[in-house]
Amino acid sequence: MNDPETGQPLFVLVRPQLGENIGAAARAMLNFGLDRMALVAPRDGWPNPRATALASGAATRVLDRAGVHTATGDAVADATFVFATTARPRGMVAAVFSPEAAMAHARNLIAAGGRVAVLFGPERTGLETGDVARANAVVSVPVNPAFPSLNLAQCVLLMAYEWRRAAGVVPERVMVAAGTVPATAVEVARMGDRFEAALEAAGFFHPPEKAASMKTVLRAMWARMPLRDADIRVLHGILRQLVRGDGRD
Amino acid sequence: MNDPETGQPLFVLVRPQLGENIGAAARAMLNFGLDRMALVAPRDGWPNPRATALASGAATRVLDRAGVHTATGDAVADATFVFATTARPRGMVAAVFSPEAAMAHARNLIAAGGRVAVLFGPERTGLETGDVARANAVVSVPVNPAFPSLNLAQCVLLMAYEWRRAAGVVPERVMVAAGTVPATAVEVARMGDRFEAALEAAGFFHPPEKAASMKTVLRAMWARMPLRDADIRVLHGILRQLVRGDGRD
Repeated sequence: MNDPETGQPLFVLVRPQLGENIGAAARAMLNFGLDRMALVAPRDGWPNPRATALASGAATRVLDRAGVHTATGDAVADATFVFATTARPRGMVAAVFSPEAAMAHARNLIAAGGRVAVLFGPERTGLETGDVARANAVVSVPVNPAFPSLNLAQCVLLMAYEWRRAAGVVPERVMVAAGTVPATAVEVARMGDRFEAALEAAGFFHPPEKAASMKTVLRAMWARMPLRDADIRVLHGILRQLVRGDGRD
Repeated sequence: MNDPETGQPLFVLVRPQLGENIGAAARAMLNFGLDRMALVAPRDGWPNPRATALASGAATRVLDRAGVHTATGDAVADATFVFATTARPRGMVAAVFSPEAAMAHARNLIAAGGRVAVLFGPERTGLETGDVARANAVVSVPVNPAFPSLNLAQCVLLMAYEWRRAAGVVPERVMVAAGTVPATAVEVARMGDRFEAALEAAGFFHPPEKAASMKTVLRAMWARMPLRDADIRVLHGILRQLVRGDGRD
């Protein structure tokens, strides 16, 4: 078995609303042997006695150890691959995986030394576009389109179940270029920030009313690429060289 | 698709205790397109307003149509194959299937004209030996042995999910990107050429003896990215905007 700290995906609940659902998610994770949870801006603060009451028993340990963050970017900072769970992939992004394919891929990434995070959105609204844009890929549970009412803990349950199924399978071999490692989310985000700033200065984001969506498209593009640390250095180098005397380190 | 009456398994809740769990089970079934439920001796009688309240919306129809029986034998009378779900197979019975294998088998049986029922036990105690003995096979969800706390609706959810997977409606992995298609090799190569030319002009490839290998690294990076036609346009746009008055189309 792998290192318990890194040998499993991190499940990130983004702006969860009800403590009960956080507790139920912790139980669902532990049912399938997962115990690494992170919380981003839980609506009712943290710790939350209702979460603890619902988790009860061993699952309270999952909550006790959960990292709490104010922004999604902080929660996934050291991840090398981020999945976003969405009910309805909205067309703009990345590869869409089934839960099975996603957890099989996660298994392979982790076996190759990667760190995988899975984002789950708030109960009513799901993940925002900005959070999805941060992900390398989307996972969508194949629910009945006429009744797609999966709740947060159920979505967590299915992903954890698929993780355990995938864990029983010998991972495929993954090709990793010698001497390079996957870039972390924070490295990709910083590189994206620099490009965005340089492009802003160059008047790329016009007309102004389209700037926000153009930035999302660009951010989603970087997130979708399987970037390595060496790629990040190359992209910084490109930017530095193209924007002469501007945006230099 | 098969006859809706017989083209899917019948999910039988045996002596369920809480109305809420019956309602949640109905929702979980409908999430994955199943709507044939039977109830055996529900503890609080039937109909149960709490079940209806939790099901709400379309899932109430699953409850309205549910057959109610006093004995398990009546509920499965016309089934040709019965699965019993148990947390811990107790050794005395038939074949033990994983949920995936069970629903794949159910699929085959139904395609061959069989009628399949799946038994789910009461919340606290699970199925009694007598009910399990009635089954042709056992299904056991591979939970964490140290924390096997799956509840009734979660067990129903996982079985319904596996039914939908077995039914073949779940694509393994889909590329979704409204209005965009994967970039062709020539599009990637042209974009790479332009970047290379712009970087050459900007003095990126130095010292000269390393230029060739730097170009190869860069080209390999573009090739490795899962670029779409829209990405190519974005990258051309980035280059055009950063290299002002230089390398413009």
